[in-house]
Amino acid sequence: MADEQAHPVTIADIAAEAGVSVPTVSRVLNGRSDVAPRTRQRVEQLLRDHGYQRRGVRPQRRARLVDLVFNDLDSPWAVEIIRGVEDAAHAAGVGTVVTAIHRRASAAREWLENLSARASDGVILVTGELDPELHAELRNLQVPAVVVDPAGVRDLDVPTIGVTNWAGGLSATEHLTGLGHRRIAFVAGTPTLLSARARLDGYRAGLDRAGLPFDPDLVVPGNFDYASGARAADVLLSSSDPPTAVVAANDQMALGVYEGARRRGVRVPDDVSVVGFDDLPQARWSSPPLTTVHQPLAEMGMMAARTVLRMVEGEAIESPRVELSTRLIVRDSTAPARPRTTGPLPG
Amino acid sequence: MADEQAHPVTIADIAAEAGVSVPTVSRVLNGRSDVAPRTRQRVEQLLRDHGYQRRGVRPQRRARLVDLVFNDLDSPWAVEIIRGVEDAAHAAGVGTVVTAIHRRASAAREWLENLSARASDGVILVTGELDPELHAELRNLQVPAVVVDPAGVRDLDVPTIGVTNWAGGLSATEHLTGLGHRRIAFVAGTPTLLSARARLDGYRAGLDRAGLPFDPDLVVPGNFDYASGARAADVLLSSSDPPTAVVAANDQMALGVYEGARRRGVRVPDDVSVVGFDDLPQARWSSPPLTTVHQPLAEMGMMAARTVLRMVEGEAIESPRVELSTRLIVRDSTAPARPRTTGPLPG
Repeated sequence: MADEQAHPVTIADIAAEAGVSVPTVSRVLNGRSDVAPRTRQRVEQLLRDHGYQRRGVRPQRRARLVDLVFNDLDSPWAVEIIRGVEDAAHAAGVGTVVTAIHRRASAAREWLENLSARASDGVILVTGELDPELHAELRNLQVPAVVVDPAGVRDLDVPTIGVTNWAGGLSATEHLTGLGHRRIAFVAGTPTLLSARARLDGYRAGLDRAGLPFDPDLVVPGNFDYASGARAADVLLSSSDPPTAVVAANDQMALGVYEGARRRGVRVPDDVSVVGFDDLPQARWSSPPLTTVHQPLAEMGMMAARTVLRMVEGEAIESPRVELSTRLIVRDSTAPARPRTTGPLPG
Repeated sequence: MADEQAHPVTIADIAAEAGVSVPTVSRVLNGRSDVAPRTRQRVEQLLRDHGYQRRGVRPQRRARLVDLVFNDLDSPWAVEIIRGVEDAAHAAGVGTVVTAIHRRASAAREWLENLSARASDGVILVTGELDPELHAELRNLQVPAVVVDPAGVRDLDVPTIGVTNWAGGLSATEHLTGLGHRRIAFVAGTPTLLSARARLDGYRAGLDRAGLPFDPDLVVPGNFDYASGARAADVLLSSSDPPTAVVAANDQMALGVYEGARRRGVRVPDDVSVVGFDDLPQARWSSPPLTTVHQPLAEMGMMAARTVLRMVEGEAIESPRVELSTRLIVRDSTAPARPRTTGPLPG
């Protein structure tokens, strides 16, 4: 204690010696990232030279934080991503701050201010729809950022973790052609999202590989929600030549297809096979349990957390975009195609 | 800047004058809660007297945090609670740190250390199963804590937000008696949880009020998961006098009942009505959409956040336990009882 009681160097002394303002020294002491690297180095060197760090002005160990930002938390896959990020961050002794900004610029701005004030080490954005201005401000703050992008947005200048949407659409379709289905419909997702387009293209590739023609009448628009799946089923199952199998571009639409089929007295999988995409927890708890393409959402969250923590350490990231692979989970909603016994014949 | 360059008071000066250690002053400066209230007051007074606060050692505004702690994040209602807490905390300019401790004492201990290090203002525990030792440590840290308790644990010495489980069981049962059902089964939840017992008692009260006898054969054990719901349906629907309606103590078991019924070719609601409990998002996305008792999980999270932030401000909390009300949401899984046309007669 004795030498601490002697006239120790003050923050103002350090600031004067470094030629910076007192708040800048504070920012360095508080581990904030909004300090130019060279300034930080100079201030840290002076703090070390004068033994400032050892005086216990700050807690011995600053608790590290990463910010995980969603547009909305009502998405059914949000909790899977939180689970993955929390798991990897917790293992590294880092806390996970979860925020929803509801597509509101004001909420995003508040979040940015809080991000600075709490000196978060890194940011994981689960959205490609962040206002470009905010992306720019984030860059100015020099806080490392990673995007988890299940929706397939592109051209972001930050590292991005996606999934292999095209390969998923292909595997769903090949599963059905392997079961002998020849008339396979596709319930499409929101057309502006690249993920929706990639899944559709995977479906087309699957038809191709089985030598089946692409029939535009078998592709029905949807918007990734349950109601649009139910409407699509209605359209498809009332046609003169209904499909024997349906690939839906996500699980919620697949469950909507179940409901559209149920209302018409059409049974899954007896009368129509259904494949989803996502493998949300409720895919297991549907009736029948849903065959679907698993998106590794928790793993995407883990990888995002590990990536951003590596960036915090100043490591270089190998690739600006990584896609984790999807895989088909076969449950009870798909069955071999049966010879057609009812309904009008093709043509 | 001028008077900051003069020999300002140091933390060591404050500590000496207050008769405490330098780290104690640091803890006060860093907003940590592990300082006795009288000590904090004395130190803060000295800091004010010497104008220490104005020197910008800390960021102008410390970003506040609350910690939200789950045993596991794979529970389907976790995201609903996160949504509510985040909403209320964000509105108050407070960040929400989400942690899962996986029922491991080591993880809980790490979390407690991080909690201190990041100087969280308050804690929301979504579990009644926290190790009593940890509860004691939390008390020692003097961090305000609130428990969100959908499971119905009691005897906690912290404010607790629960729901009216008994009233929910009653409303589910009265809905079915109102539709003319006379043989109503109950799929019970984990018997050690008070919430499960309260829902069962509500069911019994509902039978009573309709003048129906309680038949122990119509109560089938379950453990709140999908598979136990499917097994229960199997037992009930294979009996010589099957029920025309089933109340399940949660949504996941209700969806399991759907599956058990489907496997036997029994249709919901045509052959059997089903009511769940929770109103998870997937209740809307089931086929048919599930009639269920809504638990206001997001509202519980909001209330917990507001309560803990009031405690941070030193306000007194009116009641150690608050129960938010449940309400029945009628969808398509329940229908009027039909005259029995198949199956053996009673007796």
